[in-house]
Amino acid sequence: MPHSRPAQSAVGPVRPGRDAQVTLHPATAEVRAGFWHTRREVNARTSVPQGPGLLESAGNLHNLRLVAGTAQGEYQGDFPFVDSDVYKWLEAASWQLAQATPGEEGPEGRRLAADVHRIISLVAEAQQSDGYLNTWFQIRRGGERYQDLRWGHELYCAGHLIQAAVAHHRSTGRDELLDVARRFADHIDSVFGPPGSGKPIDGVDGHPEIETALVELYRETGERRYLDLAGHFVDSYGHGKLGGDAYSQDRVPLRSADTVEGHAVRQLYLLAGAADLAAETGDAELLGACERLWQAMTATKTHLTGGLGAHHAKEDFGDPFELPNERAYCETCAAIASIQWSWRMALLTGEARYSDLIERTLFNGFLAGVSLDGESWLYVNPLQVRDGHTDSGGDQSARRTRWFSCACCPPNVMRLLAALQHYLASGDAHGLQIHQYVTGSYRGDLDGVPVAVSTHTDYPWQGTVAFTIDESPRDRPWTLSLRIPQWCRTYRVRCGTETYDQSDAPVSDGWLRWERTWAPGDEVVLELGLEPRLTVADPRVDAVRGCVAIERGPLVYCLEEVDHPGTGLDDIVLDTTRPLAERHRPDLLGGVTTVVATGHRRHIPDAGWWPYRPAGDTALDAAPPTDEQVRLTAVPYYAWANRQNGSMRVWLPTS
Amino acid sequence: MPHSRPAQSAVGPVRPGRDAQVTLHPATAEVRAGFWHTRREVNARTSVPQGPGLLESAGNLHNLRLVAGTAQGEYQGDFPFVDSDVYKWLEAASWQLAQATPGEEGPEGRRLAADVHRIISLVAEAQQSDGYLNTWFQIRRGGERYQDLRWGHELYCAGHLIQAAVAHHRSTGRDELLDVARRFADHIDSVFGPPGSGKPIDGVDGHPEIETALVELYRETGERRYLDLAGHFVDSYGHGKLGGDAYSQDRVPLRSADTVEGHAVRQLYLLAGAADLAAETGDAELLGACERLWQAMTATKTHLTGGLGAHHAKEDFGDPFELPNERAYCETCAAIASIQWSWRMALLTGEARYSDLIERTLFNGFLAGVSLDGESWLYVNPLQVRDGHTDSGGDQSARRTRWFSCACCPPNVMRLLAALQHYLASGDAHGLQIHQYVTGSYRGDLDGVPVAVSTHTDYPWQGTVAFTIDESPRDRPWTLSLRIPQWCRTYRVRCGTETYDQSDAPVSDGWLRWERTWAPGDEVVLELGLEPRLTVADPRVDAVRGCVAIERGPLVYCLEEVDHPGTGLDDIVLDTTRPLAERHRPDLLGGVTTVVATGHRRHIPDAGWWPYRPAGDTALDAAPPTDEQVRLTAVPYYAWANRQNGSMRVWLPTS
Repeated sequence: MPHSRPAQSAVGPVRPGRDAQVTLHPATAEVRAGFWHTRREVNARTSVPQGPGLLESAGNLHNLRLVAGTAQGEYQGDFPFVDSDVYKWLEAASWQLAQATPGEEGPEGRRLAADVHRIISLVAEAQQSDGYLNTWFQIRRGGERYQDLRWGHELYCAGHLIQAAVAHHRSTGRDELLDVARRFADHIDSVFGPPGSGKPIDGVDGHPEIETALVELYRETGERRYLDLAGHFVDSYGHGKLGGDAYSQDRVPLRSADTVEGHAVRQLYLLAGAADLAAETGDAELLGACERLWQAMTATKTHLTGGLGAHHAKEDFGDPFELPNERAYCETCAAIASIQWSWRMALLTGEARYSDLIERTLFNGFLAGVSLDGESWLYVNPLQVRDGHTDSGGDQSARRTRWFSCACCPPNVMRLLAALQHYLASGDAHGLQIHQYVTGSYRGDLDGVPVAVSTHTDYPWQGTVAFTIDESPRDRPWTLSLRIPQWCRTYRVRCGTETYDQSDAPVSDGWLRWERTWAPGDEVVLELGLEPRLTVADPRVDAVRGCVAIERGPLVYCLEEVDHPGTGLDDIVLDTTRPLAERHRPDLLGGVTTVVATGHRRHIPDAGWWPYRPAGDTALDAAPPTDEQVRLTAVPYYAWANRQNGSMRVWLPTS
Repeated sequence: MPHSRPAQSAVGPVRPGRDAQVTLHPATAEVRAGFWHTRREVNARTSVPQGPGLLESAGNLHNLRLVAGTAQGEYQGDFPFVDSDVYKWLEAASWQLAQATPGEEGPEGRRLAADVHRIISLVAEAQQSDGYLNTWFQIRRGGERYQDLRWGHELYCAGHLIQAAVAHHRSTGRDELLDVARRFADHIDSVFGPPGSGKPIDGVDGHPEIETALVELYRETGERRYLDLAGHFVDSYGHGKLGGDAYSQDRVPLRSADTVEGHAVRQLYLLAGAADLAAETGDAELLGACERLWQAMTATKTHLTGGLGAHHAKEDFGDPFELPNERAYCETCAAIASIQWSWRMALLTGEARYSDLIERTLFNGFLAGVSLDGESWLYVNPLQVRDGHTDSGGDQSARRTRWFSCACCPPNVMRLLAALQHYLASGDAHGLQIHQYVTGSYRGDLDGVPVAVSTHTDYPWQGTVAFTIDESPRDRPWTLSLRIPQWCRTYRVRCGTETYDQSDAPVSDGWLRWERTWAPGDEVVLELGLEPRLTVADPRVDAVRGCVAIERGPLVYCLEEVDHPGTGLDDIVLDTTRPLAERHRPDLLGGVTTVVATGHRRHIPDAGWWPYRPAGDTALDAAPPTDEQVRLTAVPYYAWANRQNGSMRVWLPTS
């Protein structure tokens, strides 16, 4: 693996050290307008500012006060991981704080800074003198510690605290939360270690998370022992310390695993930690395991939306190609974890496919998790809601919910959106790589020589992305690398009189690499063909046999009942012989391009009391579609369930 | 509804009173040889005798001794309903005891009688002086009672105790368990009642079961207040007393419900109780609700196997037509509950379709729950196990298990098999109705005049059922009614020179009704066409789009990996143009008729890391089957997982 120095020092998550064994380093990007700017503005102006109020009413902050001795009453919340909601919010708010120029925060920014300060003080007050902190165990379990590692989430919560502290320190330069996190990390390091280390507990948390956090703490502090402890934890799974079940990642060591399994978020956080560890240690075996598992996951266990986790019952991965629609779990947190892991893999390997999956997940499985107004959420993200659906309510509802009893997803969405600019671009000694297309700017450096590119695009509604070189060394060639998305079949790129398309562009492994001596003012225009398309699945995906999905660019589309009143969505057959048309609707769902298709209604004869019939019984066999045409309006999947509750389908029968 | 008097006084479950508003009364049947005789012999000689040892090692009996003060130690078991396993076993053993002629029990029968006596004594010793009995609450909850009706299962356990007591009393004429049950029922009747009744608690159990039990206790004792209490409980659901959720049957009152919902076993036990109540009270509204819900259940929420319950997460019904294969829950107990409810509906209405569903469920979704040797069990009954399946172990494993941590299913199977002869035939003033075909005899009476028929058949392997009239009044015509199964397209029936087939037989609503003045020695031969057939589902059952299932007679078939070594079952396409052949294999699985079909192997090209492709991409689109033929051997679904663990499919793709 080529060794390269960091391209720059962006304030964001995942900051590989100077000696890290990565192919690419994160580059700074800024999102100034367009699709993701709108989503980030809603996050910054609605979701994040509402966090403290929601954490107050859900009792998370009250629990910290209970521990600090500044409040009276009962513990609130039913789970031992409620502290982590506070930490994830602090991380989100910290990344948000970094985006205002000091002195120019405005009243909203000052209020946010005050909230962060207040809540950090609360966390610091709640911490025990030896560094331990977990309100559930301090109150509900009488101070008992580390006796229930399988379910207790103590190290998981510590991991989120550490990530928040790293974010706060990187964003503000301030130490107060970092000091709290270090005290807790030092405490954990004094307790956990392998046999012979003199540490009393050779255990690991049932929910991975602290591993990736400890690597980041090492990056932020330079303390090698945090990295060593992360390594100890990553290699502690799979040896029966947690009872040996797949759910807790304990059935088989990561290094010898051949597929992803168990609880999806646990698996993915562990893999993010393993990738971080491989980056800092150059551990080729661990990297190889990560590559193997990513391949197995994407090829056999990933929904079209990038969603992960097939089962409700244990929130876990299913068997290969077991990808149900209505019972897709696809937890919003799993989409986030997938993006986090894939970004680390992109930096490690330089391969574009990791950012292909990130793009697909961002625009679909992830973004569906938050409403357009930033005020309500989906914990699970099904690909189908049937006609006649009876909603169970609760966290796993197919209806958007203001907050959850297990509120892991909302602050997780907040922290990803607040840090999104750090997942968009990378650099190495040879140039700048644009992974995701936004209106804004990207900055890298070539061994200290800055390069900068600004962009303008209406992506994903339009396929044109216009780049302007803003800064470039004179007389030194470098490579501008543009990711050609995996879904994209036709594209053109031009600079001045030079033009390429899919037949002759210098593209390999998903990267269009354009090396030249760039000059400020040079313009590059990339045009990605976005025409709507129909997609089929591997025939082993039984759940979608005989069906197609509508996609356009990076977006997966769906039909919603609200656009087809009185039409049972489950009685519709898509006419694949008729063209798909697109229509941009600025009025709809904050402005979306819809795809208009033609369907036929199926008239299903009354089958009496038994819905199974002999094949060849023409009265019912397949209930062939009628001539009755139905105009179908497909909307982007991410925007579903923003108008009214009702049925929804991504995959549509074709006969 | 016509009123008729009981045809006879069979010793078995569901004994409608003399004034019950039922169309048919249960008739006595005896199973002497053939398919169900074999299964019942295994139950009588292996499953039931092993019960006490399993209840001992699982701790159920120990818990009773703890309460009785005759043992020391910790409570065993993780659920508040472990007592019910003991009661269900006592019910099974009691029905078993009834089948030996007194004095001719043999050593096995004497051992069983001793076990029953011993365990009844234990139950009696454990009962508190005021009649209350629940080991979980007496020990683990410090004697607290009825404080957690939603989860506590106190009345559920009481219901199973009452059913066991009724069975024991009917079978042996002895009072000792009935006395225990009546004391508990009297205690419950003193505590539970509507507002204004002077009873302290206006509540109901989160798990229905006591309702049907109390109706049977009324039938056994003549005490009207047990019937009234059952009515109070049935109408207590759906009014928010349990929090209002569908899971506990509390979202909507049964009388106004329009589909089955929530936890499948809870729903079905409640419906069995409602049907019992309608039988004894003539409550037409309640009967109407039962008929409406049965129709909704069978038409939209029943798997091909008769299995019920689509979801693992809450063991509940899914949406209409949400009938997954690999994640079908289809709990064995739900199949049993469906049979119990449907039998009550058959007696109430006289309609054959209820026994159609019973037959389908008995031969498939129910029978799969117990291994051929009677020693291991399936809690859930999926219709597919994928190639590469990773089994989670535990109660919900797709592998047969010796006993479960929640062991509700095994003793439930035992009690149904031990009482199976009571689900086979009925009588009214006009004749005898044969619902299920076995080798044995059926007895009814016509207002006190006995009629008897003996039968011989190799059903379900052969379609011929030969009836001989053994007893009949001279010069008085009566009707022998034979159920023509819903799946059956061709049949013939003859008596002497009189012959009918499907074109001219006097069949209506599923009953072939043959009225004549029968004489002892008359012979009737029914021949049901059993040729193997392919079955399709309503197109709204998305899970099986583009697939067919193989059936033969009442049996659903499946492919198992063990019969197709090295062939990935998920890569097979059934060739529907080739004939199905049948082959009886006395050596296989205790003797089964297999169905031999032709398939083609699909060669799926390596799709890289992403299993979705543009429609029309001929390299992958549908991955058409090759010319490589594969001989497929389908075995009856009930017999799967009796040889080795591996993949299995009921529904097979056709292209």
